[in-house]
Amino acid sequence: MSITQLLTKKRFGEELTKEEIREFVKGVTDGSFADYQISAMLMAICINGMTKDETLYLTMEMAASGDMLDLSAINGIKADKHSTGGVGDTTSLVLVPLVAACGVKMAKMSGRGLGFTGGTLDKMESIPGLSVNISAEHFTEIVNEKGLAIIGQTKSLAPADKVLYALRDVTATVDCLPLVTSSILSKKIAAGTDVIVLDVKTGSGAIMDTYEKSMELAKTMVDIGNRTGKKFSALVTDMNQPLGNYVGNALEVYEAIEILSGGAEGDLKKVSLALGAHILRLSGIVNTADEGIRLLEEKIRNGEGLKKLSEMIAAQGGDARVPYDPSLLPKAEKLIDIKANKSGYVGSIQTDMIGYAAKSLGAGRERKEDAIDLAVGLVMKKRVGDYAEKGDTLVTMHVGAISDVPRAQAFIEKAIEITDEKPVLPVLIRGVVE
Amino acid sequence: MSITQLLTKKRFGEELTKEEIREFVKGVTDGSFADYQISAMLMAICINGMTKDETLYLTMEMAASGDMLDLSAINGIKADKHSTGGVGDTTSLVLVPLVAACGVKMAKMSGRGLGFTGGTLDKMESIPGLSVNISAEHFTEIVNEKGLAIIGQTKSLAPADKVLYALRDVTATVDCLPLVTSSILSKKIAAGTDVIVLDVKTGSGAIMDTYEKSMELAKTMVDIGNRTGKKFSALVTDMNQPLGNYVGNALEVYEAIEILSGGAEGDLKKVSLALGAHILRLSGIVNTADEGIRLLEEKIRNGEGLKKLSEMIAAQGGDARVPYDPSLLPKAEKLIDIKANKSGYVGSIQTDMIGYAAKSLGAGRERKEDAIDLAVGLVMKKRVGDYAEKGDTLVTMHVGAISDVPRAQAFIEKAIEITDEKPVLPVLIRGVVE
Repeated sequence: MSITQLLTKKRFGEELTKEEIREFVKGVTDGSFADYQISAMLMAICINGMTKDETLYLTMEMAASGDMLDLSAINGIKADKHSTGGVGDTTSLVLVPLVAACGVKMAKMSGRGLGFTGGTLDKMESIPGLSVNISAEHFTEIVNEKGLAIIGQTKSLAPADKVLYALRDVTATVDCLPLVTSSILSKKIAAGTDVIVLDVKTGSGAIMDTYEKSMELAKTMVDIGNRTGKKFSALVTDMNQPLGNYVGNALEVYEAIEILSGGAEGDLKKVSLALGAHILRLSGIVNTADEGIRLLEEKIRNGEGLKKLSEMIAAQGGDARVPYDPSLLPKAEKLIDIKANKSGYVGSIQTDMIGYAAKSLGAGRERKEDAIDLAVGLVMKKRVGDYAEKGDTLVTMHVGAISDVPRAQAFIEKAIEITDEKPVLPVLIRGVVE
Repeated sequence: MSITQLLTKKRFGEELTKEEIREFVKGVTDGSFADYQISAMLMAICINGMTKDETLYLTMEMAASGDMLDLSAINGIKADKHSTGGVGDTTSLVLVPLVAACGVKMAKMSGRGLGFTGGTLDKMESIPGLSVNISAEHFTEIVNEKGLAIIGQTKSLAPADKVLYALRDVTATVDCLPLVTSSILSKKIAAGTDVIVLDVKTGSGAIMDTYEKSMELAKTMVDIGNRTGKKFSALVTDMNQPLGNYVGNALEVYEAIEILSGGAEGDLKKVSLALGAHILRLSGIVNTADEGIRLLEEKIRNGEGLKKLSEMIAAQGGDARVPYDPSLLPKAEKLIDIKANKSGYVGSIQTDMIGYAAKSLGAGRERKEDAIDLAVGLVMKKRVGDYAEKGDTLVTMHVGAISDVPRAQAFIEKAIEITDEKPVLPVLIRGVVE
């Protein structure tokens, strides 16, 4: 069947067969379908939708479009985690060591991606000496021996997704349920773990802005994910303010270490432990998520989580002392406080604006080739619902040579609203799909 | 507004404003929108449709995307005609001289296009010496002095349509009402005449295969066309067999001359006169189409139509003797008859198969750069409803050096069905939109 025949079917809302979806993904991957034909298909899928079967086939074919990692050499249950992406969202660095300390093998591959701050890989690279460019063979070895590793995706992981993702970005077809689902799941399926927990963000800094759409995405991903033969769960979590108080690369590593050391509570810890608990439940280590949270808290108290982080850093060539001495992380040249110009409650924080501020300081990339400064970023001194006197610090900017300070400041001032009445506090974990 | 914002609106079925459609057409014309973005918009338009206002704006902006011909130097009413394209469909060569003989200025620009046989331009070029590559200034002069001319479209006529048309062809978005409408009308608006009559074909060789879809297209085009300030009418005519008995380039010129000489009756003459009669009615020369037909018949009887054809040929540099001596037209090397292998009625003729047969003989192009042979083609010896004895000739093939005879023969045999019962005869003129 030709691409125009496939397009005609989808244009008129007909269901594509497994073989037809295979042909589509093949043409996308080998370049025999032109960009303008692929984008017409993406638009037709966005408008006319896809059935569950179509979404499953698309996911499986995209996963099979490149290398499929074989992790069978690793003993025990292998798990992974994916977040749809937010601000101050460094749950991986908290949960991966804690879950590994409970005996589940955490084999995590991350994309570098574009965003407000660097991705998990950039955060990792702020640890002196650490490398994320590790071969699949060495990755398997590290996970088998140490129980955890976080590396960059191999280039040949789901290459069809790379083509589709680049086109979606420029054709207004990003927030489309079957396309988001197949994009995320295909990479996770190809990465080869048995258990995958998804963190679907909802709110001003998230791919899906409403709770309803986020919940629909979470349910679809778990449903399709489970049909592939893997075990999936998802949380829908709030992104109506940065998750952690630290936004940046080294700054977020610092906050993760604080949590693993038992020195910090708060939203980032809550979400990280909830995600970790569902991995433990799906892996059969515990029977309920609550039981999982108690076990993970134990791994903080007894220092085993922090030790696992140190082991992972060492295995990936980094300075193993960092978890015990975070002052070894890169530091910004200068700190600048942004203060409240009136007294009142922090009524709301627009997460995306905080993200743009961090990017303006040099913490994230606009384009792949852009430079980033691993030391810069923001520390949120007040969260939604906190009271601030006039002159109290709301945010501390960590500034470096490439920072555009006035631009960052303007974004921060736009982001934070001071109100007279105490606001209703956002619910953190808004939904669970088991 | 960016292209992704325009795409988002159309993806969610919102109506685009005049200014938004202007931006879209501007981006298409100046190349600032990428092919993959334009094709996503075409697919969104096909699925979600366009309102009448949107279709009107799209038509007007596409017309204004290049040169708009100014025919004001030509005295009197200027008229044009467009056919959605069929097989053995050479109505222009019949009606243009006849209508011009009635005093309406026929200023016709034709596209070359791809198709079963060459377009009107290829047919014209089968007349020795004749040129269709004439400047807009010289075209205006000829029409003013002689009352008629048929030339090739200038390159800068509706350039936006060229981009959209090329993409529609490869993205399964050809048969979409607002896109067909704006494509056809934009070129006619830009070509500058006051009166335009449309011939919308219906049946196996037509862009719209069912009567309902063809009628909807005719109504939409006349409605949108009249909103532009021009006078439009449309006929919906049958394409369930070739319109004329001759299919090819020189062969169709021959048949047109036969009709203008008063030597032939039949479907081609009927449709040509009906279209011409509506031009006369819209131009105010006659009050009813019936009156128009009587006037056009008169121009056949008194030889004024044939004289006008001769004048036009002379003005365009061709051999003015051709209308009086059609043996001057190029002739095929060889004739091969295809005979009935059983006795019975011609039950049906698949027009598109006859088209493919003519193309196989070398009468039409698959790609722009393909060679064509102006002399080759087919003569239909039987029409639907005719009785054929076993061994009677059904079709005579006019064959040349580039002809693929076995392929052409296979198409013809597939096209013609011989039945025991006399079939219901197709209605020729199926609808009129005044």
